[in-house]
Amino acid sequence: MKFTNRLNALIKMKKSYLCVGLDSELEKLPSHFPRKPASITAFNREIIEATKDLAIAYKCNIAFYESHGAEGWMALEKTLEYIPRDVLVIADAKRADIGNTSRQYARTFFETFSFDAITVAPYMGFDSVAPFLEYGDKGIFVLVLTSNPGSRDFQYLSVGGQKLFQRVAMKVKEWNAEGNLGIVAGATHPEELSDLRKILPTEPFLIPGVGAQGGEVSSVLHNALPPSLNAVLINSSRGIIFASNGKDFAEKAREKAMELVRQFRSLIALE
Amino acid sequence: MKFTNRLNALIKMKKSYLCVGLDSELEKLPSHFPRKPASITAFNREIIEATKDLAIAYKCNIAFYESHGAEGWMALEKTLEYIPRDVLVIADAKRADIGNTSRQYARTFFETFSFDAITVAPYMGFDSVAPFLEYGDKGIFVLVLTSNPGSRDFQYLSVGGQKLFQRVAMKVKEWNAEGNLGIVAGATHPEELSDLRKILPTEPFLIPGVGAQGGEVSSVLHNALPPSLNAVLINSSRGIIFASNGKDFAEKAREKAMELVRQFRSLIALE
Repeated sequence: MKFTNRLNALIKMKKSYLCVGLDSELEKLPSHFPRKPASITAFNREIIEATKDLAIAYKCNIAFYESHGAEGWMALEKTLEYIPRDVLVIADAKRADIGNTSRQYARTFFETFSFDAITVAPYMGFDSVAPFLEYGDKGIFVLVLTSNPGSRDFQYLSVGGQKLFQRVAMKVKEWNAEGNLGIVAGATHPEELSDLRKILPTEPFLIPGVGAQGGEVSSVLHNALPPSLNAVLINSSRGIIFASNGKDFAEKAREKAMELVRQFRSLIALE
Repeated sequence: MKFTNRLNALIKMKKSYLCVGLDSELEKLPSHFPRKPASITAFNREIIEATKDLAIAYKCNIAFYESHGAEGWMALEKTLEYIPRDVLVIADAKRADIGNTSRQYARTFFETFSFDAITVAPYMGFDSVAPFLEYGDKGIFVLVLTSNPGSRDFQYLSVGGQKLFQRVAMKVKEWNAEGNLGIVAGATHPEELSDLRKILPTEPFLIPGVGAQGGEVSSVLHNALPPSLNAVLINSSRGIIFASNGKDFAEKAREKAMELVRQFRSLIALE
């Protein structure tokens, strides 16, 4: 089944837009975990157990795994084993390179690891994204408007009457023949989200930046949701997984996840 | 010592601009290698042995390693052990993310692995590049003008009287307080290389795209070299490492590498 259809079915079933970011930085794990890469797996396992009924997706931030070399990749592999089939798994990898190289990256995340979706960077243009699109059932989220301060450096440049990020969104629309593209758009730019939704009426939006980075859930949902009330994933990483530094970390993570889901449900009447 | 100083000293000493791309795709290794990730290490070892006196740098295209998961990262780790200290090692990783994530990527390539330099993507702006810059002795090559067809999609867009790639180059200049930034600029755009050299008179240019992708050495050197005749690395990957599919692959790789170095030396009188 197409990624977008799976996503929308899960949103409807679970009445949630929650994506939990497994940015499981070893040094930040609760203090009772030994400082070795295998602890990342043990930590993730408990976080997953505590949040899997609320989460539509887990987003694994690849940087926090590969920084431990081969052992980190093993921690990633084991983490995926703990994620049940009714939760999507996104590789937040921000890859893209010339065609023959992007093909290898696609293979990494869609074959060696069986992620359901990946984030990719747009700067190198179509042939750097195309190899990912060949996997028709996988989701590909192109960086359009990022949540960080540096998003102002290039993404807002004027290019022929529009901003660069809008141009990238229009290219995403043009490239989306297979219906498997979506975008990353930061919660820190709520007004721009409604512009982007006009350009991309049904494409999935992966929205990081609520919580630690300052984005607000209500304005994000108000601006990013299409009339069908789906095609949105709101990511929270540190705000959930590091809610407590003690042995109650999983319980506290569930509380924070539940808080977000309650907010979604109070704002939007998901049928 | 600063990366740029090491680079320029090696160019002078070895009279070469050669960067050998270790895009060691398992399926393309000479047919006598068993199809398992450990073969990548064995293959690289012979390529390195055959070319190390001619090469200024090896560029490891990370995609071809990580596509094999943990085993691929072990192959990368072992490959680095075979590279002597008088050849620089570049992680062609094209990473960049929000600050706390880029910090992890920097740690991956500069600490977990001891690369001398890395390639990074510019779209997310300054704070996505800054964590790499904190490593004062390492080199950071920002993608400015890539060698692939998709470089036309965004990099040539007009932004206030200049092209986006020129704007990125000007930002690189602005960000280069520590003198450790350089750029990636494709050999397939020789005329633009001289524009870029005007913006960045002494910064290292990592130039892929000769050989398989069609760039020409003479026009590249003519346009990219500053009067000091340094600060340039010309990368060839497939043209060297896959010059033969037989047991003579290392010998043939050396011949191809030597051909390029002879071309450099016939074009430029390196003192």
